[in-house]
Amino acid sequence: MELLPRLDAAEVRRLDRAHVMHSWSAQDLIDPPGVVAARGSRFTDHTGREYLDFSSQLVNVNLGHQHPDLVAAIAEAAGRMTTMAPSFAVETRSQAAAMIADRAPGDLDAVFFTNGGADANEHAIRMARLHTGRHKVLAAYRSYHGGTAGAMALTGEPRRWGSEPSLPGIVHHWGPYPYRSPFHSDSPEQECERALAHLREVVEVEGPQHVAAIVLETVVGTNGVLVPPDGYLAGVRTLCDEHGIVMIADEVMAGFGRVGEWFAVDRWGITPDLITFAKGVNSGYVPLGGVVVNAAIRETFGRRPYPGGLTYQGHPLACASAVASMRIFERDGVVEHARALGEDVIGPGLREIAQRHPSVGEVRGLGVMWAVELVRDRETRQPLVPFNASGDAAAPMSEVAAACKAAGLWPMIAGNRVHVVPPCTTTADEVREGLAILDEALAVADARTA
Amino acid sequence: MELLPRLDAAEVRRLDRAHVMHSWSAQDLIDPPGVVAARGSRFTDHTGREYLDFSSQLVNVNLGHQHPDLVAAIAEAAGRMTTMAPSFAVETRSQAAAMIADRAPGDLDAVFFTNGGADANEHAIRMARLHTGRHKVLAAYRSYHGGTAGAMALTGEPRRWGSEPSLPGIVHHWGPYPYRSPFHSDSPEQECERALAHLREVVEVEGPQHVAAIVLETVVGTNGVLVPPDGYLAGVRTLCDEHGIVMIADEVMAGFGRVGEWFAVDRWGITPDLITFAKGVNSGYVPLGGVVVNAAIRETFGRRPYPGGLTYQGHPLACASAVASMRIFERDGVVEHARALGEDVIGPGLREIAQRHPSVGEVRGLGVMWAVELVRDRETRQPLVPFNASGDAAAPMSEVAAACKAAGLWPMIAGNRVHVVPPCTTTADEVREGLAILDEALAVADARTA
Ligand SMILES: Cc1ncc(COP(=O)(O)O)c(C=O)c1O
Ligand SMILES: Cc1ncc(COP(=O)(O)O)c(C=O)c1O
Repeated sequence: MELLPRLDAAEVRRLDRAHVMHSWSAQDLIDPPGVVAARGSRFTDHTGREYLDFSSQLVNVNLGHQHPDLVAAIAEAAGRMTTMAPSFAVETRSQAAAMIADRAPGDLDAVFFTNGGADANEHAIRMARLHTGRHKVLAAYRSYHGGTAGAMALTGEPRRWGSEPSLPGIVHHWGPYPYRSPFHSDSPEQECERALAHLREVVEVEGPQHVAAIVLETVVGTNGVLVPPDGYLAGVRTLCDEHGIVMIADEVMAGFGRVGEWFAVDRWGITPDLITFAKGVNSGYVPLGGVVVNAAIRETFGRRPYPGGLTYQGHPLACASAVASMRIFERDGVVEHARALGEDVIGPGLREIAQRHPSVGEVRGLGVMWAVELVRDRETRQPLVPFNASGDAAAPMSEVAAACKAAGLWPMIAGNRVHVVPPCTTTADEVREGLAILDEALAVADARTA
Repeated sequence: MELLPRLDAAEVRRLDRAHVMHSWSAQDLIDPPGVVAARGSRFTDHTGREYLDFSSQLVNVNLGHQHPDLVAAIAEAAGRMTTMAPSFAVETRSQAAAMIADRAPGDLDAVFFTNGGADANEHAIRMARLHTGRHKVLAAYRSYHGGTAGAMALTGEPRRWGSEPSLPGIVHHWGPYPYRSPFHSDSPEQECERALAHLREVVEVEGPQHVAAIVLETVVGTNGVLVPPDGYLAGVRTLCDEHGIVMIADEVMAGFGRVGEWFAVDRWGITPDLITFAKGVNSGYVPLGGVVVNAAIRETFGRRPYPGGLTYQGHPLACASAVASMRIFERDGVVEHARALGEDVIGPGLREIAQRHPSVGEVRGLGVMWAVELVRDRETRQPLVPFNASGDAAAPMSEVAAACKAAGLWPMIAGNRVHVVPPCTTTADEVREGLAILDEALAVADARTA
């Protein structure tokens, strides 16, 4: 008996429509394309068309698709030990934790593993609350932290709306965003200063002695690739230290090579108290996430039980894939490659594109994490599509996406932005190929400008 | 470069102590044993000692450890496609969804995949709330639904306490438990009737028009292997139908063979509106869970987006392992075997044990899901250890566990109970071997009786 029978692409799509419920979607209004194969920076849809993947799927395949060495390691690890309860000490769990702790800054030396990013954030805020004995958690607008109730409550964008009222005690503030400053600043320096003043003021009015944690994406991902101005993270660190507030860096998207560092905080030399991770830790080849925990918080749960867990915590097969992935990163210089791609290829390439297209308001990013923000008018900075647009209102962006796809590029679209987030292993030539397609596709957006 | 270097058992344990944060534990008060190998119904610890696994880890390895065919299928599937974003139609995702839908009762024909049990419950209550436009959710005391905020809020036992205040709108009620009736009943029939009357009354006082869902474990797992009296689930179904309330069956533990059925509700011929699953669907070889959704709720999200998702939804490798696991179940008659084990071996064996030991208050269960409830006194039914005991107060149970382990049996202990939850593939001889060890070990408990 064949345990994994093959289906043709049409049958796959028929069964998908009949039986798979898709996330964030109206089920009858979607027609999910099939993917029949994937390798490196490319994948092939059900019509046989190949795409260069500038999305890394959900910004997770940092090592690209079906990396042969990682696939081989998973096959080998499966033969050794697939699963084992969290209460035991097992080889790959110990190894993965030690390797992550080695790479994490400062005294972040313990790892609480989860299945993905959402539950990592859930456990991080629970730890912070119990560690401080305080209840409030500050999180930023324009953030995404995951799809479970606690992670949704942290989330500062429309995806939260369908889950409210939610967990009590979460307060949202504004983070820095020089291009559309909530603080009417006119330079990154001023934005930094004003964003910190705002955050300090929110802490004050909420009562510092009631604030358990400040959660932020080190580099804000889906909500704009918002790179913090130099000094911002250091300022948050200082504010947290002043008041005994736990600083939680959500690096689910930004960690593990994406910004050309193992952890994005390294770029600014900052040590948060907790870092949450998933995605890039093993490119999502097996579901895995977690929280890296500093010594003080680990100590809080030294003689007092930490009240949380999950069946697949520290999953041996998932941890094996993380171990192998980190070793491939190191062997092949993947982090350095990602940094160089940003500095030498994507950054310069996008800046050139920006000059040629009136629809490009700003390009920003680092490593392999970039955004091209599209506008109707460079002067007014009116976004090419309104906030939270869908359907017809979002047509200008859908048309850009369609133009990319027609030319063989799979883009990531978010709001009025095209995010350029290919695998960290993409070659410079592949990046140039993709940027050339994007360059052409932006004519569609230019036609919509004032 | 070796991508998966081997460590000796001492190093694994050293790194675990230094870097792994364990769930539900005071980190400095534990000394996690190592597990170096596992196969079938047995695993081997770091001292080389072999145990018969009567816990199925966290009641998840329904196919046993390292099932060679499932391991081979995972290795093969990894070479085809490990990961792919949820928005695409992919082979194993479609297959797994179709197979689960085929096995699920009634018109539960769509699957929303998650990474585990907690997030399955999160999405189930979100669907129910949006489907009904109502906010309140009823859940039972003596239940466990998972470790994320929403699933924790549903949970009706002490593991919730560390996460409160939690999600608003969750109301707890009492479910049936004939041996310790909250309703002062003196038969299962009366318990059923009174439990339903109680539930109906809670719905009334909460306002039926405000109740979105009633969530229950079809067979309550960690909180006691509480098998619902015949008629209870049908009564809940009727109550839900009367008021347009969504009935959610949490089968994370009870589903996929555990009670000798594909889904535990089949035992009573009941069709809930949503079923949540994880664990047994693929024995946890790759993290996977999900919600099976009926036609009406699927239809609610036909032209209106469902506001939820996660990066690893419908993970291709995890889905492949579910497909292969279900096919092995079918090929080898695993469900039937589990049912027969319960009827012919475990049930009769435990009833004999009960006769020999004054410490045994009750044995109950079905399939490979059983509990032996230990008491100080059969007359008063005083539990062998107090509610939520830990440390010294729990010593009598720890001693039973130690006696089992010393004789080569790995038991599952919960409160004042020994749960007998071996893999569904355990042979009758292995079960007899384990029961014989348990039989001896219970002398320790007998010594504590009045
Ligand atoms: C910054 C950030 N945090 C958390 C998450 C949630 O991760 P997951 O989807 O694995 O739950 C995401 C997912 O996109 C993310 O980008
Ligand atoms: C009945 C039940 N529901 C939900 C869960 C949570 O599942 P997970 O640990 O995969 O999140 C469990 C786990 O033990 C369970 O037994």
